[in-house]
Amino acid sequence: MKRKDLTSLAALSPEEIALILDTADSFKEVSARDIKKVPALRGKTVVNLFFEPSTRTRTSFELAAKRLSADVINFSPSSSSVVKGETLLDTARNIEAMQADVIVLRHAAAGAAESLARAVRSSVINGGDGWHEHPTQALLDLFTLREKKLEFAGLTVAIVGDIAHSRVARSNICALHKLGAEVRVVGPPTMMPLQVERLGAKVYYQLDEALADTDVIMMLRLQLERQGRALFPSIREYSRLYGLTGERVKLAKPGVVIMHPGPINRGVEIAPEVADSLSSVILDQVANGVAVRMAVLYLLCGGSKKELMIE
Amino acid sequence: MKRKDLTSLAALSPEEIALILDTADSFKEVSARDIKKVPALRGKTVVNLFFEPSTRTRTSFELAAKRLSADVINFSPSSSSVVKGETLLDTARNIEAMQADVIVLRHAAAGAAESLARAVRSSVINGGDGWHEHPTQALLDLFTLREKKLEFAGLTVAIVGDIAHSRVARSNICALHKLGAEVRVVGPPTMMPLQVERLGAKVYYQLDEALADTDVIMMLRLQLERQGRALFPSIREYSRLYGLTGERVKLAKPGVVIMHPGPINRGVEIAPEVADSLSSVILDQVANGVAVRMAVLYLLCGGSKKELMIE
Amino acid sequence: MKRKDLTSLAALSPEEIALILDTADSFKEVSARDIKKVPALRGKTVVNLFFEPSTRTRTSFELAAKRLSADVINFSPSSSSVVKGETLLDTARNIEAMQADVIVLRHAAAGAAESLARAVRSSVINGGDGWHEHPTQALLDLFTLREKKLEFAGLTVAIVGDIAHSRVARSNICALHKLGAEVRVVGPPTMMPLQVERLGAKVYYQLDEALADTDVIMMLRLQLERQGRALFPSIREYSRLYGLTGERVKLAKPGVVIMHPGPINRGVEIAPEVADSLSSVILDQVANGVAVRMAVLYLLCGGSKKELMIE
Repeated sequence: MKRKDLTSLAALSPEEIALILDTADSFKEVSARDIKKVPALRGKTVVNLFFEPSTRTRTSFELAAKRLSADVINFSPSSSSVVKGETLLDTARNIEAMQADVIVLRHAAAGAAESLARAVRSSVINGGDGWHEHPTQALLDLFTLREKKLEFAGLTVAIVGDIAHSRVARSNICALHKLGAEVRVVGPPTMMPLQVERLGAKVYYQLDEALADTDVIMMLRLQLERQGRALFPSIREYSRLYGLTGERVKLAKPGVVIMHPGPINRGVEIAPEVADSLSSVILDQVANGVAVRMAVLYLLCGGSKKELMIE
Repeated sequence: MKRKDLTSLAALSPEEIALILDTADSFKEVSARDIKKVPALRGKTVVNLFFEPSTRTRTSFELAAKRLSADVINFSPSSSSVVKGETLLDTARNIEAMQADVIVLRHAAAGAAESLARAVRSSVINGGDGWHEHPTQALLDLFTLREKKLEFAGLTVAIVGDIAHSRVARSNICALHKLGAEVRVVGPPTMMPLQVERLGAKVYYQLDEALADTDVIMMLRLQLERQGRALFPSIREYSRLYGLTGERVKLAKPGVVIMHPGPINRGVEIAPEVADSLSSVILDQVANGVAVRMAVLYLLCGGSKKELMIE
Repeated sequence: MKRKDLTSLAALSPEEIALILDTADSFKEVSARDIKKVPALRGKTVVNLFFEPSTRTRTSFELAAKRLSADVINFSPSSSSVVKGETLLDTARNIEAMQADVIVLRHAAAGAAESLARAVRSSVINGGDGWHEHPTQALLDLFTLREKKLEFAGLTVAIVGDIAHSRVARSNICALHKLGAEVRVVGPPTMMPLQVERLGAKVYYQLDEALADTDVIMMLRLQLERQGRALFPSIREYSRLYGLTGERVKLAKPGVVIMHPGPINRGVEIAPEVADSLSSVILDQVANGVAVRMAVLYLLCGGSKKELMIE
């Protein structure tokens, strides 16, 4: 891979996506071994720079780096320099000065990863920037679909929920559209971004209609802790209109694949029996997250698929 | 060892306890070396899943895992998914999906470790569940007594303090009774659990009486931060009635061994001159905690005493 | 090096300082490699015991230890035992009992590192104790000056800002004076410690006057979050009187070197164009911090310059 950074899926070519997924295949095999570790990034330094709390994504990157034998530092500025008024750029330049090879950035501002990538020599991976993108999440979703033997071209995918405030949705719309899938987005009008059609998605407001004949249903988490109640009258109302139940799953194609980026709200956006059903690949997504992040770290540090040293 | 998990001492046979303590002997020797590290768990992943803050126990497990060359992740859900409403089981299944070999769980609910152990393929170690059990603490206490050349059969042990709210007490009563020791529990009636006799302990309410002719005094920490004042009139009153002073130590057998799980409240449940005396093995307990946890991690990951690869 | 601890620069001889800086030269070279790691401290345990939050210094020590292949534990007692009322000494003895080879201590009380060093067998590094000392910061400053080919003897250094509440200032005054430099301190009278002349510094209250013909300007961070407004009328006023602007830099010698321990308050104590100018070595200081801390860890663990195993 020729690039220094991974800040968005919008920037990746289909060939680059394929390269990452192919490399992740090899690393998935590593995670299944008795000794889940390869020396590929020995002596490299990966810094998780998380301005928003996220145990889950941070842990996935941390495990990925450790299984590649890199040294990992968790840098949570909340408690320190940021309180002290330092700018993001100054914080990042400090980390760069300590010879970080990769900075994984989670930040509340859309575009934060992109501007950091331009300012430092370290590789920057966008671990989620505001409502903009979360590229490794979309890559692990693609990986999971490919693992289920689905072809992207011609695939019908319904993304359900708060589209407007979801970086996961945005990255997936972008990637799936690029690879030839039909992407439907469905949610209440208050949660639908302006001009989402321009990203290549078809807009629906009725869940049942959107689910008809889909191959994949991608539920989004209702971020109870983030938004006030202004966007929908009540959680019960939201759940009744946009929650995925066993009944609704039947509207999709037989063998439909059900995804969720987690953490799930059981009984809110997804019924427990759906989350735990055989159609659900939610835990595969988690497992594949580690493999995909290993691939991204490895490729950005200059590794190539060919010379992949898996001990 | 044939088991996948260590959730309570109640479940262990005397032979299993002996196996763990014998294995810990070897690992104690490792910690005394110049290079305190063996490759036994290279490529394994240990996740510390601590729902209650505990720098001390977490650090002991973290060091144990690192000295076995495992990769360790500290996962403190307080700041993340739990706030977001995820269930314990969903959190744990996510960790399992990332191929954790061992999950060390500290949780406020009694029985949490047991139900987790049944639900995931990863090994589960109970790092303290509510007022229920704290098995590695009791194992390190046993190890420390054995190291002092004490025979468990016929040993008289007095456990002093808030018996009702102490998982350390419960695990120790259980283990010591199983190994043939006479266990006395002493504390104010408000801190005495119902039917504690059924665990095999003899109940006392007067400290002096309970200390007579004991071989071992195990003080419990007065958890000032946890309980309100309802259980005793004042700290001074508690200290006067149940604090261990140099005078009181003389009531026990000569050569009595004094233990405390830490952190100690100097001058509350234990007088400084007692804590720092030659009879005190408090710091041995801390040192042995690392060795015992290395043994438990090693055995649960399939290691056997025989083929113990100590480099 | 013959000493067990590094608690202050006041205690070091010029020869010991030179030994540390020479050793850091070798480790700086390691950080520039593709594989930034040497096995020097394999199997050693380094514990970062930080009672005050400090992502930056903690990260620098953590990276230094990891690049030496040591096992590192971050122990932040704020959330645990300290709340529970344990004394510093008891916390440290627990860490010692877990066979920590080195304890890096950050503490709000002046003298904390020194008293700890006397009480435990582990090596103690002062990572900042109250307003007293921050020896590794001064060592990295010396390293940075030496790297710029400056001779300490006869060098004129102006230290600007809140001298009274700065451990960085105190350590630097001490070290620079010992090595033959002329040290000027400048700041408002409310921020000038009593009898600072006895440390070997010359006192100024006017910035312009202090800057005349200096070789080095060392700006201190205005600790907005720490002190109330009692020490100066307003931030704007402080900035006008003691902020370093491009105009003021011209008062110093041509080729003057500008330093700051970070994190910087842009536009308060230092103008952005000065911080980012070619005269500024602020990011060199950060990079050198890792190398200097590697050297200190290595030497305290018994390494010698001669037998420096750099793989």
